[in-house]
Amino acid sequence: MHFPSKLIEEAVNEISKLPGIGKKTALRLALHLLKRDESQSMMLADAIVRMRTETKHCRKCHNISDDEYCQICLSPKRDQSIICVVEDTRDVLAIENTAQYRGLYHVLGGIISPLNGIGPNDLHIESLTKRIREDQEINEVILALSPTMEGDTTAFYLQKKLKEFPVKISTIARGIPIGGDLEYADEVTLGRSILSRINYE
Amino acid sequence: MHFPSKLIEEAVNEISKLPGIGKKTALRLALHLLKRDESQSMMLADAIVRMRTETKHCRKCHNISDDEYCQICLSPKRDQSIICVVEDTRDVLAIENTAQYRGLYHVLGGIISPLNGIGPNDLHIESLTKRIREDQEINEVILALSPTMEGDTTAFYLQKKLKEFPVKISTIARGIPIGGDLEYADEVTLGRSILSRINYE
Repeated sequence: MHFPSKLIEEAVNEISKLPGIGKKTALRLALHLLKRDESQSMMLADAIVRMRTETKHCRKCHNISDDEYCQICLSPKRDQSIICVVEDTRDVLAIENTAQYRGLYHVLGGIISPLNGIGPNDLHIESLTKRIREDQEINEVILALSPTMEGDTTAFYLQKKLKEFPVKISTIARGIPIGGDLEYADEVTLGRSILSRINYE
Repeated sequence: MHFPSKLIEEAVNEISKLPGIGKKTALRLALHLLKRDESQSMMLADAIVRMRTETKHCRKCHNISDDEYCQICLSPKRDQSIICVVEDTRDVLAIENTAQYRGLYHVLGGIISPLNGIGPNDLHIESLTKRIREDQEINEVILALSPTMEGDTTAFYLQKKLKEFPVKISTIARGIPIGGDLEYADEVTLGRSILSRINYE
């Protein structure tokens, strides 16, 4: 593509490095920014810089936070006896949006994935065992990891690590999604949902 | 959505102001930026700021440019006798990518659209007539506007304005796209393509 300006070319190159954004979309966004008020582009650039330089990670659960400790860890309304282990901040947001969980979190910061060179030592697993060892109040750990090969591997590793502690270890339920059609469910999910059937209430 | 950090919330708000990007995608992009090297986020923000503050518009054709005059207007290889009138920079890029046109451009900076409050005086039409009046070399003006109601209105207005000059006025061909299927062409396009049929060569 021939760009009319080196500056636009640079901006398009940078924008198209974002996931799911190709050169054409990046160009559309760049031209949109050029048409908009200058102040709005400045606010966007400023918000990116401030987010990147000023956000911290909670020292307890490793979730993204504005301060040393995150709002969830600091809240007296949360149930301090349950920890929900998730892969990253997006999962925390997804679970928070359900409004069904009132416990604490522990963000691993990734998932065990030998193909991508990520081992247990690259994740916040040490600090999880430390939390459980030091806080006698904790009596349940929920492993809320994606039901993929990497997620299952990570869950298996964690379960082995946490066996020595007097806490209950659970995992989120697998099965047919609410509103899902049996006909279109994959065989593995359907098979598992029959094996781990629950009492009709 | 509950955000774990005010800074992320601000970034998501700013990113989701871009066209075609909703809150969920904006959050995905923000978290991606947080995971990436800090330098890359800085480069993105910097590229946006520099593009917004340092790009100029060519004084001759109003295309986006790094200098007073754009590369196309300055190039001695371009045919100085033809001007292609387009809505915005994106159209210049699209036509340049075909490598079929070697003349000059004139970017209107929009299209006549009474519904959006854009009249002829908001567009670079005065400078187009000035260019044609002052440059005796120009002998053809191609109206390359979108075949929409606004595009047709603008083309009609321009054609009336330019009638007084001794230049040929043409418009890009309308018809069935190359590789397009007759069966799926809309009736208006198909009808027009029969009315304005061309000799088989």
